Amino acid sequence: MLELPGLIDPHVHLREPGGTHKEDFDTGTAAALAGGFTAVLAMPNTQPPLADAASLELARGTARAKARCDYGLFLGAGEHNLDVAGELAPQVCGLKVYMDQTYGPLRMGSFSALLAHFKRWPGPGPIACHAEGPSLAVVLALAQLFEQRIHICHVSLGIELELIRLAKQRGTRVTCEVAPHHLFLSREDLPAIGPGRAEVRPPLASPSDVAALWAGLEVVDCFATDHAPHTLQEKDGAEPPPGFPGLETALGLLMGGIREGRLSIEDLIQRMHVNPQKIFGLPPQPETWIEVDEDAAWEVRAAELQSRCGWSPFEGMKLIGRVRRVTLRGRLAYQDGEVLGPMGYGRDLVAAVQSVPA
Amino acid sequence: MLELPGLIDPHVHLREPGGTHKEDFDTGTAAALAGGFTAVLAMPNTQPPLADAASLELARGTARAKARCDYGLFLGAGEHNLDVAGELAPQVCGLKVYMDQTYGPLRMGSFSALLAHFKRWPGPGPIACHAEGPSLAVVLALAQLFEQRIHICHVSLGIELELIRLAKQRGTRVTCEVAPHHLFLSREDLPAIGPGRAEVRPPLASPSDVAALWAGLEVVDCFATDHAPHTLQEKDGAEPPPGFPGLETALGLLMGGIREGRLSIEDLIQRMHVNPQKIFGLPPQPETWIEVDEDAAWEVRAAELQSRCGWSPFEGMKLIGRVRRVTLRGRLAYQDGEVLGPMGYGRDLVAAVQSVPA
Repeated sequence: MLELPGLIDPHVHLREPGGTHKEDFDTGTAAALAGGFTAVLAMPNTQPPLADAASLELARGTARAKARCDYGLFLGAGEHNLDVAGELAPQVCGLKVYMDQTYGPLRMGSFSALLAHFKRWPGPGPIACHAEGPSLAVVLALAQLFEQRIHICHVSLGIELELIRLAKQRGTRVTCEVAPHHLFLSREDLPAIGPGRAEVRPPLASPSDVAALWAGLEVVDCFATDHAPHTLQEKDGAEPPPGFPGLETALGLLMGGIREGRLSIEDLIQRMHVNPQKIFGLPPQPETWIEVDEDAAWEVRAAELQSRCGWSPFEGMKLIGRVRRVTLRGRLAYQDGEVLGPMGYGRDLVAAVQSVPA
Repeated sequence: MLELPGLIDPHVHLREPGGTHKEDFDTGTAAALAGGFTAVLAMPNTQPPLADAASLELARGTARAKARCDYGLFLGAGEHNLDVAGELAPQVCGLKVYMDQTYGPLRMGSFSALLAHFKRWPGPGPIACHAEGPSLAVVLALAQLFEQRIHICHVSLGIELELIRLAKQRGTRVTCEVAPHHLFLSREDLPAIGPGRAEVRPPLASPSDVAALWAGLEVVDCFATDHAPHTLQEKDGAEPPPGFPGLETALGLLMGGIREGRLSIEDLIQRMHVNPQKIFGLPPQPETWIEVDEDAAWEVRAAELQSRCGWSPFEGMKLIGRVRRVTLRGRLAYQDGEVLGPMGYGRDLVAAVQSVPA
């Protein structure tokens, strides 16, 4: 039995408030525990978006009541929340900027508002950027010019990783994450997954981009699932929203990568625990670890997953390596398919840092 | 009588080949001489665009036959001329990249081709960029990451100048130009000019942007007219193409700025002679100077201008300060409204550098 530190996923969509038919803090954190994650950082493209004090308090209240594992919340950068963003910065794990079109209402349409956020964001969390292609170059320039720390979400292309490598070499404070689906699926899998279900942003890339991500793994700071659940009805409907669930398949996929010699267990721990904790300034979770059966073979079956969304792009895939037990702050929170951590046990890791007495 | 070095305009559209009903190397360089310019750098968004050896040779042939003042030609960056660009680099004053939509067919639609040009352009000329707003941030990032020298064309917004200032401070090799129409017109002039005629890229900006350009003049390396003639019929038609003529009004406008104490004559010489020569590596023009009557008052009347396009956005404006005589390489080339430099007298300044015996 392999013992690992609690995994940290710096990029999940738990759909609360406003999308609880897809997922909520209950089912989303249950899926996290089942996948070996003891902390998740939740994205702000909810309904309403987490872009002001009221919406943040709304999300924080439901998270406090329902989360089964620890968490942090991102604040969304909008065109009209500059002052508010500075005030709320200590309460969130980072500022999320949507440079490109994806699910939700937060796309940054104003270049001057974007500049103002980069000029004024006080930290301590980084500016997390959905920034594909040219947008990546934009945020690399702004990070350099305004001396901000940025984290690039779900890198999917070889040329993007190349730019990030160069920017790191030249001293820009940039980190990045790659999603397992961009490491284990390519656009050649589109027919098998089906056109609606395969919709994801950034889209599945070419096999040569997938190869470039693997070849440039030393530039990749984190693995992040970008767990983005939508119901099967939505994915199979006329306007399928982009997004894959991913919390419960990430570790099994990456254990396969280890088995194939594409990365080491140390590479995995760096990218799924050490670096996310460091990048987002998260406190250690005491008495927290997971136990993984490296040899357990299993087949992905959506019906057996904890996520409310009810499907997986990896349906039917045979994985080897499965989470057996998760211990979170001294308590057995997951064991062999059963989520034991109760709703409300999860803590806000960022608020926790803030509430430590001086 | 004020004696100045021959002015150099690093950004003109002479419309040849393919648009000679708007302008050509004959009328365009006549307009240049009338405006006090002894050298102009011509943009590649012609028909065909100057993007390969054949089109460049076509333009060079007509320029050689018809130009009345000295000149250089830009090469256009396309999605399929990477190898060719490197080969032709020694023959042109720079590589022009169109990041944003404007007149002509050269807009760069491929991010990977853009990266490849930045990776491979050998110089010696800079990469000149039409890059507004976010596109400016893109090329600043690429210049920094690939250690290229870039020149930003026709800056029109305060936030753009601020980014360029920061990039210079942080060591990026970037220079920039501002067009007189962005210093002397704002969007408040749209009604007076008329909607079709006022079409220009970048568009006329807000009065506060105009003020920011004046306030940040120390960041501005060059004044460039972006002389972009279209006929009145086109400008007043159903789909007015963007662009203003500007060669014959630039000096009068800027002399007004000197009169108002907004810049010094030394500022003007730096931005209209010294810096363009340095940035584009142009050889000195021996025995070349212009004589300007600082006190001559005149009114802009398109009918009296040399440009073929037959109109001016400054029509009716009263200017003080006018070119009386232009001497180009020892020969009187312009005097009191009369263009004396014959067609074919102009030299290709870049080819001239190349042809100097070792």
